[in-house]
Amino acid sequence: MKKLLHLLPGILFFGLMAAPASAQEGLSLDSISTTAFFTVSNLWLLIAAALVFIMHLGFATLEAGLTQQKNTVNILFKNVFIICMGTLAYAIYGFNAMYPDQDTFNNFFAFGSAIGNSASDADLSPEYADYTIWTDFIFQAMFAATAATIISGAVAERIKLGSFMIAATVIVTFCYPITGSWEWGYGWLDDRDFADFAGSSLVHAFGGFAALAAVIVLGPRKGKYTADGKIKPILGHSMPLATIGVFLLFLGWFGFNGGSVLNADPGLVSLVFVTTAMAACAGGIVSIFTSWIVLKKPDLSMALNGILAGLVGITAGADSMGPWSAVIVGAIAGAIVVFSIIFFDKIKIDDPVGAISVHGICGIWGTIAVGIFGGGNFGIQLLGTLSISATAFVLAFIVFTVVKMIFGLRVSEEEEFEGLDVGEHGQEAYPDFSMSSR
Amino acid sequence: MKKLLHLLPGILFFGLMAAPASAQEGLSLDSISTTAFFTVSNLWLLIAAALVFIMHLGFATLEAGLTQQKNTVNILFKNVFIICMGTLAYAIYGFNAMYPDQDTFNNFFAFGSAIGNSASDADLSPEYADYTIWTDFIFQAMFAATAATIISGAVAERIKLGSFMIAATVIVTFCYPITGSWEWGYGWLDDRDFADFAGSSLVHAFGGFAALAAVIVLGPRKGKYTADGKIKPILGHSMPLATIGVFLLFLGWFGFNGGSVLNADPGLVSLVFVTTAMAACAGGIVSIFTSWIVLKKPDLSMALNGILAGLVGITAGADSMGPWSAVIVGAIAGAIVVFSIIFFDKIKIDDPVGAISVHGICGIWGTIAVGIFGGGNFGIQLLGTLSISATAFVLAFIVFTVVKMIFGLRVSEEEEFEGLDVGEHGQEAYPDFSMSSR
Amino acid sequence: MKKLLHLLPGILFFGLMAAPASAQEGLSLDSISTTAFFTVSNLWLLIAAALVFIMHLGFATLEAGLTQQKNTVNILFKNVFIICMGTLAYAIYGFNAMYPDQDTFNNFFAFGSAIGNSASDADLSPEYADYTIWTDFIFQAMFAATAATIISGAVAERIKLGSFMIAATVIVTFCYPITGSWEWGYGWLDDRDFADFAGSSLVHAFGGFAALAAVIVLGPRKGKYTADGKIKPILGHSMPLATIGVFLLFLGWFGFNGGSVLNADPGLVSLVFVTTAMAACAGGIVSIFTSWIVLKKPDLSMALNGILAGLVGITAGADSMGPWSAVIVGAIAGAIVVFSIIFFDKIKIDDPVGAISVHGICGIWGTIAVGIFGGGNFGIQLLGTLSISATAFVLAFIVFTVVKMIFGLRVSEEEEFEGLDVGEHGQEAYPDFSMSSR
Repeated sequence: MKKLLHLLPGILFFGLMAAPASAQEGLSLDSISTTAFFTVSNLWLLIAAALVFIMHLGFATLEAGLTQQKNTVNILFKNVFIICMGTLAYAIYGFNAMYPDQDTFNNFFAFGSAIGNSASDADLSPEYADYTIWTDFIFQAMFAATAATIISGAVAERIKLGSFMIAATVIVTFCYPITGSWEWGYGWLDDRDFADFAGSSLVHAFGGFAALAAVIVLGPRKGKYTADGKIKPILGHSMPLATIGVFLLFLGWFGFNGGSVLNADPGLVSLVFVTTAMAACAGGIVSIFTSWIVLKKPDLSMALNGILAGLVGITAGADSMGPWSAVIVGAIAGAIVVFSIIFFDKIKIDDPVGAISVHGICGIWGTIAVGIFGGGNFGIQLLGTLSISATAFVLAFIVFTVVKMIFGLRVSEEEEFEGLDVGEHGQEAYPDFSMSSR
Repeated sequence: MKKLLHLLPGILFFGLMAAPASAQEGLSLDSISTTAFFTVSNLWLLIAAALVFIMHLGFATLEAGLTQQKNTVNILFKNVFIICMGTLAYAIYGFNAMYPDQDTFNNFFAFGSAIGNSASDADLSPEYADYTIWTDFIFQAMFAATAATIISGAVAERIKLGSFMIAATVIVTFCYPITGSWEWGYGWLDDRDFADFAGSSLVHAFGGFAALAAVIVLGPRKGKYTADGKIKPILGHSMPLATIGVFLLFLGWFGFNGGSVLNADPGLVSLVFVTTAMAACAGGIVSIFTSWIVLKKPDLSMALNGILAGLVGITAGADSMGPWSAVIVGAIAGAIVVFSIIFFDKIKIDDPVGAISVHGICGIWGTIAVGIFGGGNFGIQLLGTLSISATAFVLAFIVFTVVKMIFGLRVSEEEEFEGLDVGEHGQEAYPDFSMSSR
Repeated sequence: MKKLLHLLPGILFFGLMAAPASAQEGLSLDSISTTAFFTVSNLWLLIAAALVFIMHLGFATLEAGLTQQKNTVNILFKNVFIICMGTLAYAIYGFNAMYPDQDTFNNFFAFGSAIGNSASDADLSPEYADYTIWTDFIFQAMFAATAATIISGAVAERIKLGSFMIAATVIVTFCYPITGSWEWGYGWLDDRDFADFAGSSLVHAFGGFAALAAVIVLGPRKGKYTADGKIKPILGHSMPLATIGVFLLFLGWFGFNGGSVLNADPGLVSLVFVTTAMAACAGGIVSIFTSWIVLKKPDLSMALNGILAGLVGITAGADSMGPWSAVIVGAIAGAIVVFSIIFFDKIKIDDPVGAISVHGICGIWGTIAVGIFGGGNFGIQLLGTLSISATAFVLAFIVFTVVKMIFGLRVSEEEEFEGLDVGEHGQEAYPDFSMSSR
């Protein structure tokens, strides 16, 4: 894998600011001779990147819908920040740290450098892959920001904005590429034939267990658990927003998994579309009936989380099993997520949107499911997913603890009561409606 | 057309649950040799499937927007259920019943079986089509669920959730493939050169007339018609949601119609994009001015329904006429829908979202329009669309009547007054706003 | 560039209504022999058109979100009208006026005619371009409507519906193709090697300065400026709608810029995806911190406008500079937009959504940035963008002034107070919530 120049270890953002001077005569891309398959594959990866991009809107509306009205601006702001910061941070450091071809420490850790600014820095040839290096970057960058987005839901409604922004930036920039490189950057898990097709572990379990660490450091929302230990549900404020979010995530997952084929192979991409959709649908159906039995009512939030659980579950093995195996994987994920959400609620891990269960627990399930249905080695799958999850947990625990010590992590009790929209942003999400909702 | 094994008539879902055992060593798709055209066509069909998928979010938000706040969770839940159930049911039975190559009864009815789980069951060769069998399945599955989604809007705000779920499952699984196979499964209408490109009749009129039957069996919402026979409008609760829905449906229709070319033929796919867009726009414009004249005000709901009317109208002939013919077809649909909605309202067919007019009436119009502008035989077009519509009506009438007899169909008057969100789900769509809206 | 028959100068819509008679035997597209690259490029342009289409939903929700609840139906209606009208008007006249190959007046102005209805009118051959003429039309039509959409936000909350509809129609139909043809129709700016890749000037500055003229003719909203000259902010009613809008616009921009490559060249399309995304993200980040410093609070509206500013800024040079140059262009746009919005507010140009700053000012910046980072001639870039902006301003000023003289432009003070939803449409956006919000 030919790569960009590695002259600049670490962040050299401001140094790069000068670089464009040399590009003032404009960028000239040599017309590259490509096969039709290269052209189609490259196009598919770009469209897939756009589909993964829209998952960030899905996360934004899902998280906003499942939290209270008074914290809506804050949730939306965090998601807007994450996609902006995540893309830039990945360009400055993460991309080259995650896919190193040299300068790695024992296949375990690599220093990253910024992507190049001129055509001569970029490898656009078919020898690189079935797509250009720009395509590679943008597709992976859309994934990278997902890790922080998963955390943002779990810590919603009580975390200081600035502290979250710092922690999220550190995690996306420096932590995510470490575990990412273990598998996708030809690291030690790849050496052992660990299979995580599109990231049940590398993206979702990573995000879910980083979220768990963050929630533990942060503590539950005020009023969620009463003095005598009872759980008081805090309802979200808009089920249409939450539903829009899940449909957009489902849509985006066709790009997340379908694009992870890394070319336009008709058999593989179409199989992945089918396994992805069927796992999602099975997750939704099983979650509907599980929650109907357990909670006595057909619960929309659980149906939505069931779809997401199925999607997270199939992400590791979408390319390696048939549709009915995918149904089983999704169905089990749909059941797991219901019990997992109830469990974490009970042990006072306050996760407003269920991110730890959906992404963390179902991410682990999906990864080991490849050892059952997808031809992977069960032991390696278990080793891999636990290594990634534990590392995510430890790194995030350290990051959030350090941020807590330096800047503090929680807003004041008054601000939490009044809402972060007014407290952090001086804005309301629905000014015309707000008088009536107080 | 090579097909999957037809060993298993009917539903063998639980039997299939055991099948994945044989897939434990993982699925190996032979690298298939394909032409560039095959690869591009296959990719386009998959992207089109994703676009059709997002129509389900369009239906969900449109129906939620055009109904009352107190029934929002219920509407959203039904749409989430339908996409999950529809995809699975189509995999278990519908796909092979709709596209049979054997075991058919006089080109009229076929038993279906579940799709296969391993690569050897699937035909990925160019001899099958310009796409793989997995692509075929996922594209068609997204269509199948649409029939039930159309019904869900018409019966909104008063149908029992469980009863709807059962009826919708039966209709999608067993009824939709019958009429579907008449044309797309090489049945008796296909033998007679009936032309229904992407399903003005097979999808939309089917859904619309099934909805009409359901509404007749179910009866109007309480309070819609006063004791002295007057019509009392029941307003929707969110025009932004409704507008989001129509734009997403318009977007998705590029995949619905464009994908129905069944390959990436540049001339045909681009023509279909143009006819689809221009019919939609003409429908919107004519509906705006028709409703402005008839109702004295420029009505947003009518503008939105006009766009949908144009889209349903062009669906049968999007590939067989020029852009200006498409404008005429869409424009007439845009006028029809206004008068049709007013008409059904007058005769006490209470259809909260106008689904019967948009999908049923404009579906018939679109199909016969192919006999005027698209080179089809007028008599055959009329015969085909009436056969499909009447069959949909009769089958749905039977299904909803049987479900009514066994389980009951309507919620109690109190629940209807209080709203199905609390009654069926114990949830509110907007808890933070709810106190003020009572 | 072979083109359609130019027999019909001006609008012959009703004449065309008769044309389809000759198409009654159906349209037969000759199976065209195409290369794989043609097929892929054509498909990409169509998908890009669908992405640009969804920008209209983005504009609709952004504008609805940033304005008051009582004017929501009106905003949505205008956006629905614009996409319908814009597509039809472009088919009737604009497309052939914008891309003339004859009948032009000194490369400055051309009469347009309607697009053809039959296959023989359309050029589907690779000699035309890397896509069919239908693809060309639908991609460009989606752009054309954007100009009016930009205006609709700036004049929101006080313009008469009918007057806006007339002015918007005239501007999209007759004004937009004039400046458009200067560059993209091989006019005088193209002769001078002016570079405006996807329309920082031709689309966005055009729309922004037309909006400025409209706002000047129309005047500010009542209550925005107090008698003693103070600014009283009028808040939008839904930040989730606004956020959905910006994410959809960001998504659509991948098609807006990526499709403007006009084929599927892997190097160029992927570079454009990267520059587009990175400029947007840099715009968002810089806008967040600029507004945080200037306004003391991290403002969500400013973050959203920063993303749009970055997108508008990179639109002229997305194909001609590297990622880090794009970051600089986007970052500067993100700073400009904050100060520009504050500036226009101060000088009593009342633009509820910031359209003049985002599209007008950042459109100029993006165009001249090609003279700094993208190899363009600075003087020509400046000449081009100022010519286009000034022309848009003058033409729109004339159109809105004439409409004002004939029909009046503002709703009554009472209607403005009560809201245009009830005044113009007799509808409310949220009937169930409305009692509480009064």
